[in-house]
Amino acid sequence: MGTGVIKIVQAHAAALEARTGRAIAIGAVSARSRGKDRGVDLSGYGWEDDPVALARRDDVDLFVELMGGSDGPAKAATEAALEAGKPVVTANKAMLALHGQALAERAEAAGVALRFEAAVAGGIPCVKALSEGLAGNAISRVSGVMNGTCNYILTRMESAGLPYAEVFEEARALGYLEADPTLDVGGIDAGHKLAILAAIAFGVQVDFDGVQLQGIERVSIDDIRRAGDMGYRIKLLGEARRTAAGIEQSMRPTLVPADSPLGQLEGGTNMVVIEGDAVGQIVLRGAGAGEGPTASAVMGDVCDIARGLTLPVFGQPAATLAAPRRAEAATPCAHYLRMTLHDEPGALARVATVLGQAGISIDRMRQYDHPGEDAPVLIVTHPCAPDDLARALQGVTATEVVRGEPVALQIQTA
Amino acid sequence: MGTGVIKIVQAHAAALEARTGRAIAIGAVSARSRGKDRGVDLSGYGWEDDPVALARRDDVDLFVELMGGSDGPAKAATEAALEAGKPVVTANKAMLALHGQALAERAEAAGVALRFEAAVAGGIPCVKALSEGLAGNAISRVSGVMNGTCNYILTRMESAGLPYAEVFEEARALGYLEADPTLDVGGIDAGHKLAILAAIAFGVQVDFDGVQLQGIERVSIDDIRRAGDMGYRIKLLGEARRTAAGIEQSMRPTLVPADSPLGQLEGGTNMVVIEGDAVGQIVLRGAGAGEGPTASAVMGDVCDIARGLTLPVFGQPAATLAAPRRAEAATPCAHYLRMTLHDEPGALARVATVLGQAGISIDRMRQYDHPGEDAPVLIVTHPCAPDDLARALQGVTATEVVRGEPVALQIQTA
Repeated sequence: MGTGVIKIVQAHAAALEARTGRAIAIGAVSARSRGKDRGVDLSGYGWEDDPVALARRDDVDLFVELMGGSDGPAKAATEAALEAGKPVVTANKAMLALHGQALAERAEAAGVALRFEAAVAGGIPCVKALSEGLAGNAISRVSGVMNGTCNYILTRMESAGLPYAEVFEEARALGYLEADPTLDVGGIDAGHKLAILAAIAFGVQVDFDGVQLQGIERVSIDDIRRAGDMGYRIKLLGEARRTAAGIEQSMRPTLVPADSPLGQLEGGTNMVVIEGDAVGQIVLRGAGAGEGPTASAVMGDVCDIARGLTLPVFGQPAATLAAPRRAEAATPCAHYLRMTLHDEPGALARVATVLGQAGISIDRMRQYDHPGEDAPVLIVTHPCAPDDLARALQGVTATEVVRGEPVALQIQTA
Repeated sequence: MGTGVIKIVQAHAAALEARTGRAIAIGAVSARSRGKDRGVDLSGYGWEDDPVALARRDDVDLFVELMGGSDGPAKAATEAALEAGKPVVTANKAMLALHGQALAERAEAAGVALRFEAAVAGGIPCVKALSEGLAGNAISRVSGVMNGTCNYILTRMESAGLPYAEVFEEARALGYLEADPTLDVGGIDAGHKLAILAAIAFGVQVDFDGVQLQGIERVSIDDIRRAGDMGYRIKLLGEARRTAAGIEQSMRPTLVPADSPLGQLEGGTNMVVIEGDAVGQIVLRGAGAGEGPTASAVMGDVCDIARGLTLPVFGQPAATLAAPRRAEAATPCAHYLRMTLHDEPGALARVATVLGQAGISIDRMRQYDHPGEDAPVLIVTHPCAPDDLARALQGVTATEVVRGEPVALQIQTA
């Protein structure tokens, strides 16, 4: 990550100076291993083994944090830089999602910038769009696909017809997964990003705990195929919206129309959709990760700071950010259900009855051929509240005509 | 246009103050007719018949220019505001495309901002993305669909199967066209926008005269249908690129794959595609015009100024912007040709021979049924230089086997 930033500073020194009016140069660097060959020449720069020492160096005007991890050295060094009155640029979504409010208060008390374009959706300038370009709007909704690894896994499963476990191992071998893969496939990393965007969009404190999280681990190749039969593709979709009932945040596998912009997203590409009262809908698409896109976002922030821009961290002063009022019930939406019925008379009727009694109305139902003893069944519901559906599915499971746990995924049509 | 800005200022006063740290209020307004009912209450604001007088008022800190027109009152008032040391926010693409360099020099000499997000692609924050968010990149290409009226006409022709002239009249009746419709359908308005983006992207002076312009007036319903048969849709596509040979700018009807993001653009929606060395490709989509989107862009600029941001007008000081070196020959691309042959033996062979002798290689050729005396012919070429093609088509016309002028449109596949 740091390598990409160094490459830009080395390759575009003259252009950066023309654009910002200041020479931008690397003062010193810190990393776990000094000897490692990174493909860039570090010999002209100072070196610190301890990132906190780097953040405090007198010859450093601006600290770029690209270590990652919500706590530990990343947070210590960020705090040290802010304390020393130095602006910080970071790509660290976990740190911002968990400690964003406290860090914003520190940065604003010190009167310096803390910027993080690279923390959300890689090279897409979505933090800037939301906090600056669309600052004249009341934002009602921010949504999108924000984890390239999950999108890679889901599109690869579909294109190669491979099961989840196999593609997961491929992704691991390709180095696409975080050291703790749950951060990716559990939707946590994407949830961090969504919580950050929601804070800016709605003028509230970051509330990662308020994100309804569901990972992609239970999405099977069967789900992908059957969703495809109905004209949908499955994406790990994040959505934050402000309704009269409060703020809703969710990150979960979702069926979207295959021919929609979201449905057409391939591999590691991210998409962020912003809806404002004046602007309508704005869609931003680009690479969600990688050395170049991350470095592009970092350098955008560095240029802003070099140009003298100091904005409140989340777009308005941290002290004015309210704790978000979480909506008690999520907005109803249509759902896709997949379950396997024991092959016994009346099983399907039992399921339909239990769903109906729980107020879940069925739009379409399809039973597949079942040469063996179990019958896969696919149901599309009319819009229903996720909580009602969860209760209904408990009822379905209690009938004991279903084998294993039913799979339920939301469907987004707009 | 001004009405939308007033609505935002009235509706979101508290949020705007929280975001910028300053109260934002309308001091005074000017318009052609004072009495006209605009659906907003202007009674609390000062009034000036003369926009120049408005720009000079002591109680005005920032001047918003939404009159339009490259010269006349818009330019006079903008200059008066800059001279008085006041920042200006404008939606005026014609003024910037024709006088951008001189106005940038004035603004920078006065040390005030001149901002114009609303001048390009309506509510899409693409000027900000290019000049700020992607400031760490060397930009190689900016392209997109930037005139909603043309896109409306082309998509409406296709969906309703109506000829150009009829849809043109519809658009006029709906108030979608500029007072001088050539600005829209001749590609001039979109060309203005492209020239502005190119200046920022490549760090050169705005060069509207360097834009190769072709309007949509000659695109027929036949072209749309036949392009559709081959999997394409026709869009008024702008493209500015920097190559070793210099800078190329073009705005012309182009065949794009129907299932691509550009091909799927409907009605008044705009799309801007930016390609940078670090970030790769970034795509931005949103409403290209209208009261709300325009006001959103204007207020984004107003908020930036209220927050204290003063950037060089085109991203780097006007004095450092070089006159662009125009590429002498455009990059080769595939073309779609449609011509009508007199129904005489060997006509098609003559055309093919003339094209071949001029070095134009044919990828596909299709002759349609011709119950009457004339035979419509459709040709897709392999990539060729537009200049070579133009010369070849002169040769084709000289054979006198062709009735009328052949239609040639570029095809973009990437």
